[in-house]
Amino acid sequence: MSEKYGRLKALLAEIYDLDKAIAILTWDREVNMPPGGVEGRANQLATLSRLRHASFTSDELGALLDDLSSKSVDLDPDGDEARIISVTKRDYDIERKQPASLVEAVSRASSAGLEAWARAKEAKDFSIFAPHLKRNAELSREIAEALGYTDRPYDALVDRYEPGMTTAQLETIFSELKAAILPLVEEITASGVQPDDSCLRLHYDPDVQIRFSLDITTRFGYDLNRGRLDKSAHPFATSFGAGDVRMTTRVQADFLNRNLFATMHESGHAMYEQGIGPNLSGTLIAHGASGGVHESQSRLWENLVGRSRPFQDFLFPRLQQTYPGQLADMDVETFYRAINKVHPSLNRVESDEVTYNLHILLRFELENDMLEGRANIDRLDEVWVERMQKYLGVTPPDPVQGVLQDIHWSYAGEFGTFPSYTLGNVIGAQLFAQARKEMPDLDTQIASGQFGDLLGWLQTNLYQHGRKFTPNELLQRITGQPLGTQAWVSYVRGKYTQIYNL
Amino acid sequence: MSEKYGRLKALLAEIYDLDKAIAILTWDREVNMPPGGVEGRANQLATLSRLRHASFTSDELGALLDDLSSKSVDLDPDGDEARIISVTKRDYDIERKQPASLVEAVSRASSAGLEAWARAKEAKDFSIFAPHLKRNAELSREIAEALGYTDRPYDALVDRYEPGMTTAQLETIFSELKAAILPLVEEITASGVQPDDSCLRLHYDPDVQIRFSLDITTRFGYDLNRGRLDKSAHPFATSFGAGDVRMTTRVQADFLNRNLFATMHESGHAMYEQGIGPNLSGTLIAHGASGGVHESQSRLWENLVGRSRPFQDFLFPRLQQTYPGQLADMDVETFYRAINKVHPSLNRVESDEVTYNLHILLRFELENDMLEGRANIDRLDEVWVERMQKYLGVTPPDPVQGVLQDIHWSYAGEFGTFPSYTLGNVIGAQLFAQARKEMPDLDTQIASGQFGDLLGWLQTNLYQHGRKFTPNELLQRITGQPLGTQAWVSYVRGKYTQIYNL
Repeated sequence: MSEKYGRLKALLAEIYDLDKAIAILTWDREVNMPPGGVEGRANQLATLSRLRHASFTSDELGALLDDLSSKSVDLDPDGDEARIISVTKRDYDIERKQPASLVEAVSRASSAGLEAWARAKEAKDFSIFAPHLKRNAELSREIAEALGYTDRPYDALVDRYEPGMTTAQLETIFSELKAAILPLVEEITASGVQPDDSCLRLHYDPDVQIRFSLDITTRFGYDLNRGRLDKSAHPFATSFGAGDVRMTTRVQADFLNRNLFATMHESGHAMYEQGIGPNLSGTLIAHGASGGVHESQSRLWENLVGRSRPFQDFLFPRLQQTYPGQLADMDVETFYRAINKVHPSLNRVESDEVTYNLHILLRFELENDMLEGRANIDRLDEVWVERMQKYLGVTPPDPVQGVLQDIHWSYAGEFGTFPSYTLGNVIGAQLFAQARKEMPDLDTQIASGQFGDLLGWLQTNLYQHGRKFTPNELLQRITGQPLGTQAWVSYVRGKYTQIYNL
Repeated sequence: MSEKYGRLKALLAEIYDLDKAIAILTWDREVNMPPGGVEGRANQLATLSRLRHASFTSDELGALLDDLSSKSVDLDPDGDEARIISVTKRDYDIERKQPASLVEAVSRASSAGLEAWARAKEAKDFSIFAPHLKRNAELSREIAEALGYTDRPYDALVDRYEPGMTTAQLETIFSELKAAILPLVEEITASGVQPDDSCLRLHYDPDVQIRFSLDITTRFGYDLNRGRLDKSAHPFATSFGAGDVRMTTRVQADFLNRNLFATMHESGHAMYEQGIGPNLSGTLIAHGASGGVHESQSRLWENLVGRSRPFQDFLFPRLQQTYPGQLADMDVETFYRAINKVHPSLNRVESDEVTYNLHILLRFELENDMLEGRANIDRLDEVWVERMQKYLGVTPPDPVQGVLQDIHWSYAGEFGTFPSYTLGNVIGAQLFAQARKEMPDLDTQIASGQFGDLLGWLQTNLYQHGRKFTPNELLQRITGQPLGTQAWVSYVRGKYTQIYNL
């Protein structure tokens, strides 16, 4: 290791530790903090973020990265050293390209936006939030200009979350998905089949639910020696290093899905972080490859495993044993259909596997319209209603259940994050299809509660690499194919044709 | 506020937030962290400590403090601004006076010392630890030389924890205590009275114990909106700012005292920190005044309130109601004598109110002997046994129950901390005597579970001031008398004369 590379590693270790300290303080805020801690915690987080920013944008780091980049032609381009240098340089440039005045303006607009968004929801009045959304769209445009792009301003924004992804590629993906989903939803509606999901809405003891879902996710492979499960208002997973990756969940006494699938979902995020290679520890690439690739793992374990038919042969008898009063007379097939019921809904986070991507499509379209000046933001609530009717056939009764439902647009800097959700679904399906191809008895393994081969395959092919490769590179490396929608479309069509007798 | 003072406050706020982040990571390590987190957490804490040290020893801060100190003659000497400047300058000088090479040597010796101490305990062989103790004594001497002193090297060490305290003052205190305690213990032994404490050794449900002690401490005034209680191996209290002060406790199913009095003890520390004035927040004086003054509050609530006769009239009926199977046939007077049984013991942390200070006296004497070259450290285990026989009449069967019992001497930098325990007892008694003088019906209030006046009195006279005043200043301000042993001696003699029919 050269002296300069050693120095780079030392500088990165400081940033890494600050990131982890921020993550710990944030986790604690959501899980443990008493009400009186709000102000102090905001100060602590602001100070650590400021120190983190100062460390990360130092001239010394910039000069080191320039120097090491120019010399890295001799390195193995897929090796740790070359990738640590190139990915860090990419992050550094993104951080440095945004002038302090813009960062400050984004921070101020976000505080005001968040406050106005909460007020608008309270009053069910979009006009309270509209001027802030307009400001946030302007600032997003400014961020895009500061970062630079060749084709579309959205390119610059989405590239922060999905390295190497373009608006054009996303448009292709969404257009293929739309072409597949809209007729499928029509067929499902026309089928007249209505799975009975009343069994999910009985009373289930909250403590038992949590113990049960934790047991399931540790069988998946979530390692409690390097993690723990707690409750929080919104479930999340967070890593303090591969040796301490925690997840949170929520629980609803009269809805079995809430806890069970939220915990499976977070376990996917958490197992990914537990699997980051120790060789990457202390660097900025010791993290999931992108928002979409991360989401691919939560969706893989939640849906492609958790909501699959083979898995129910393992899960359902255990549920019956745990809840005999509620499930003794139920059969596995009915349960399988219940947890996979398709129901076009107003709300993204409550939507089913089939229609979920339509919610994201709508947001992707509107973000681009706002960014490129096509949208009348003052009337975005009405545009929202029109598109919901067009894509999902439902009509939000008020803006709280419409355009105001997500917190994301309150933050000036978060345009470009929504596509990661859809990429998660698409990538998850493509990876899972490849895993099934390479492990022909995977369904049998899953049906008997054996997840070691699947986890090992993901660990070897994906988890250990952290952010070394872009999403597109990962898909090409692992599946031999570019990232595409075919696997997801084929999975969804096959699954729901069977469930709805299409 | 002058521009320079404003800049000082900004620099201090960064150090303050780093201190709190370190406290949060430490709390989490003791309360929540899974085993896999050990290495990562050590890295995070080392990085935050390094950043803290860099912030605190900056030349800019030094120049600001010099400048502001020279101008502070016009300020109210007891006002916040003057005290923030002078106390911070004192801290700054202590931090700067220790050369980096010495800090590094102390850190290395502590790691080696801790490891050797654990090994020596395992092998019950003091000779494994002796060379490390010798090295730690040498380094303590070097620290004393670096910090500077006029009379005794110990002055420099103890001054770090008890500002303004000298070895001579401590020698007077210990000599007065020894003169009072030794004959009292003799009288107690000669009395033939043996309180029956078997009721404390029955089975008490651990969860119920924790709920009960939390209820008691919230009645004392510990505010759960600004705190929480968890379990940890060693109980402690920690502040993340006055809005979030947490405490931990431990519990033993077959010993009622363990949880009950540990929780009361920590609540004293915690209420002190919850009571720090908001005007001091974000500065380095937003903390208890010294180790001894802090301990005075834990001991005041644990012993002077918690083990007092009036308090049992409130506590015991509630205990009886909570544990009818164990306590229904017990009477309050017997219970009072049980929790106050005097029993000279080998172990400091298990010792009673009367003999506790003898354990500290022994350590104070040995630290000075080591520091001033009078001790034969290779045979300190034997010296320990001789003094234990002399002071407490007991003989440790092995060094684990003797010289190796405390972890403190494993750390090269911790000589000088033990006296704070005794100062805590002495100061607590002096403050409590003053409180009783000013509130003649305090006993009646305590007997009926009313603690608001006492907490308010402590809040007004002590808690709000943080580190503005030294221990000696505080005692003079609050009681009109210098710090002295008279109140403690009179309290202990009075209490145990009654219990042992002397």
